[in-house]
Amino acid sequence: MGGGSELPATGGASKRELLLCVLPWPEESFKKIWEDIAKEFPQYDLHYYETKADRGKIQLPEEVYKDVVILATLNWVPQSASLVPSLELVQFYSAGLNHLPDKSIYKDSEIPLATASGVHGPQIAEWVVMMNLVHSHDYTRFYDAQKRKEWLGFGGLNMRDQVGQRVGILGYGSIGRQVARVAKAMGSDVLAYTASPRHTPESRRDDGFIVPGTGDPDGSIPSKWYSGLDKESLHDFLKQELDLLVICVPLTKDTTHLLSSDEFAVLEKSNPLGTYVVNIARGAIIDQPVLVKALETKQIRGAALDVTDPEPLPQNDPLWTAPNVLITPHVSGSTTVYVERAFQILHENLRRRRDGKKFVNLVDRKRGY
Amino acid sequence: MGGGSELPATGGASKRELLLCVLPWPEESFKKIWEDIAKEFPQYDLHYYETKADRGKIQLPEEVYKDVVILATLNWVPQSASLVPSLELVQFYSAGLNHLPDKSIYKDSEIPLATASGVHGPQIAEWVVMMNLVHSHDYTRFYDAQKRKEWLGFGGLNMRDQVGQRVGILGYGSIGRQVARVAKAMGSDVLAYTASPRHTPESRRDDGFIVPGTGDPDGSIPSKWYSGLDKESLHDFLKQELDLLVICVPLTKDTTHLLSSDEFAVLEKSNPLGTYVVNIARGAIIDQPVLVKALETKQIRGAALDVTDPEPLPQNDPLWTAPNVLITPHVSGSTTVYVERAFQILHENLRRRRDGKKFVNLVDRKRGY
Repeated sequence: MGGGSELPATGGASKRELLLCVLPWPEESFKKIWEDIAKEFPQYDLHYYETKADRGKIQLPEEVYKDVVILATLNWVPQSASLVPSLELVQFYSAGLNHLPDKSIYKDSEIPLATASGVHGPQIAEWVVMMNLVHSHDYTRFYDAQKRKEWLGFGGLNMRDQVGQRVGILGYGSIGRQVARVAKAMGSDVLAYTASPRHTPESRRDDGFIVPGTGDPDGSIPSKWYSGLDKESLHDFLKQELDLLVICVPLTKDTTHLLSSDEFAVLEKSNPLGTYVVNIARGAIIDQPVLVKALETKQIRGAALDVTDPEPLPQNDPLWTAPNVLITPHVSGSTTVYVERAFQILHENLRRRRDGKKFVNLVDRKRGY
Repeated sequence: MGGGSELPATGGASKRELLLCVLPWPEESFKKIWEDIAKEFPQYDLHYYETKADRGKIQLPEEVYKDVVILATLNWVPQSASLVPSLELVQFYSAGLNHLPDKSIYKDSEIPLATASGVHGPQIAEWVVMMNLVHSHDYTRFYDAQKRKEWLGFGGLNMRDQVGQRVGILGYGSIGRQVARVAKAMGSDVLAYTASPRHTPESRRDDGFIVPGTGDPDGSIPSKWYSGLDKESLHDFLKQELDLLVICVPLTKDTTHLLSSDEFAVLEKSNPLGTYVVNIARGAIIDQPVLVKALETKQIRGAALDVTDPEPLPQNDPLWTAPNVLITPHVSGSTTVYVERAFQILHENLRRRRDGKKFVNLVDRKRGY
């Protein structure tokens, strides 16, 4: 509030503005968070619409469309950009927006679109770390044995810690950077892969939202950086004898089936002991029938997937029972502090709007994410 | 070899000395490692005895007992100190030596005894991190669902990441320090507990063996240090609203049943949401029937145990099926690089013997570990 604290809280001449939330959580669940925002920004009138199972069938009064200035939404957007003439910012509460390029608001407008990228960093990175450890410590075997009340012997254990292991991070954004931070603390060597080259210290910085105390803000963790959108560049990265490959690129046309037969062949050739492949991005980034085959023929050591193609994964999909695969139902980002952190980004962007600064986490329409 | 490399490899006048290995692994498995040591220390004659299931019934020629200078062993020691008049160092390949104080070599001699403490750091720390994540990400539910080929919905998820969580480490040795390193990378706050007070930077250093790139060599990670051997000091630590309590103290008279009714009551009172308790040390440090009750009455949120009392845990022990408990059969330290790292400590201690320096990882007979 700074020096303005002697002004009336509702802000004298300032025009009141409509902030619309279209979210799947009950309004009460973030009451305290909203109060904090409202204290700093009393000029916003909040209109809250709780979506339940009615995604896509949102019913809002016409004047809300007309007047909305800020839209905070999980992934819903108005059918047409022309419906929301006053809209100045869409703050998404999701990080992956692969359906967005089809939408009018993306194609027909230049309304700033900001993602919740960075909110998921710690939770999803932990999922990656957990699954890699569950695999490498063979934990599911012991879990099954506990159910039988059986104290297993040491026979056949083939575990080793992460010290000196090589971790390749395909997509060095907020999630990848937090995986890197933890992997480095475990003694692993981290290689980063980005779409565009990052040769300078400036270009290696994370300019998105970062949960304080996490991530790799200045990009100092990787021992080496790789980049490119072409096959050759990707293969050059996959050739680095990776023990762990973490997929955290957004799904775009360029990244659909980014990993297919050629890529699994490159991985196998470079690391005959087998790379462990972890996907927390989107299922379609991996050519899934090819993945099943790669698992069956042991081209890779195993895979942990929080995303599949399609979702939910049909009961008769062979992926469920492929060897050395662990699947969770797109829950890696689920956290009780999610809403709180997503509102932190909205809050930050309201500050930036007030200060005339560039929004954080903006979607680049040219890149498609 | 320094300036001595022009001398004959077998070392002219230097007396040849007997180095005895009594280990459960085949001699071939560390052939390469031994060659490295032998290159630097050709004066040692290696006598290798592979124990299989015959722990305690080791049969060795009398002159081996008489001549052994260095003994490298998992945990076997000669029945009497008087049998090994030339022995100058016992290098154990185990970190926890709770049966040792009953042995003649401990009671009746001052032969330096060195542990393999530090070797297990990364592997066991990973087990701690894994189990805490498996619990906090509710992974076993998804593992069970995968077996049923079932894509679970989001309902009832109550996960949150480790950012801002408070981790109490009871016993800040090599394992605890590596847990701290990873916990901090995840954004958690670390509190350390040690037997003796560590008020100065010097006293906070880790002077034992550290796997390079891991641990907390200078003790800079904890935000606060606690210490003491009395109940009051322990309770002061347990009162700190811990989300995670990691037990990594050695088993001694002082630490037997260190955690019992009073301690679980303190934990519950301080953190009504429940502390998650992880034990990788020795089962008897926790009063086990009390632990079962604490789990049943939800005094704590859950427990992950790699050690039980007794081991193996009998089939009819109620611990197997206590709520929110995950048990593994004393495997957290099992790793394929274990032998290699343990030999690194032996190698280091041979160097220190040559240089007249104090051995690393010495057992302090007064403290009992």
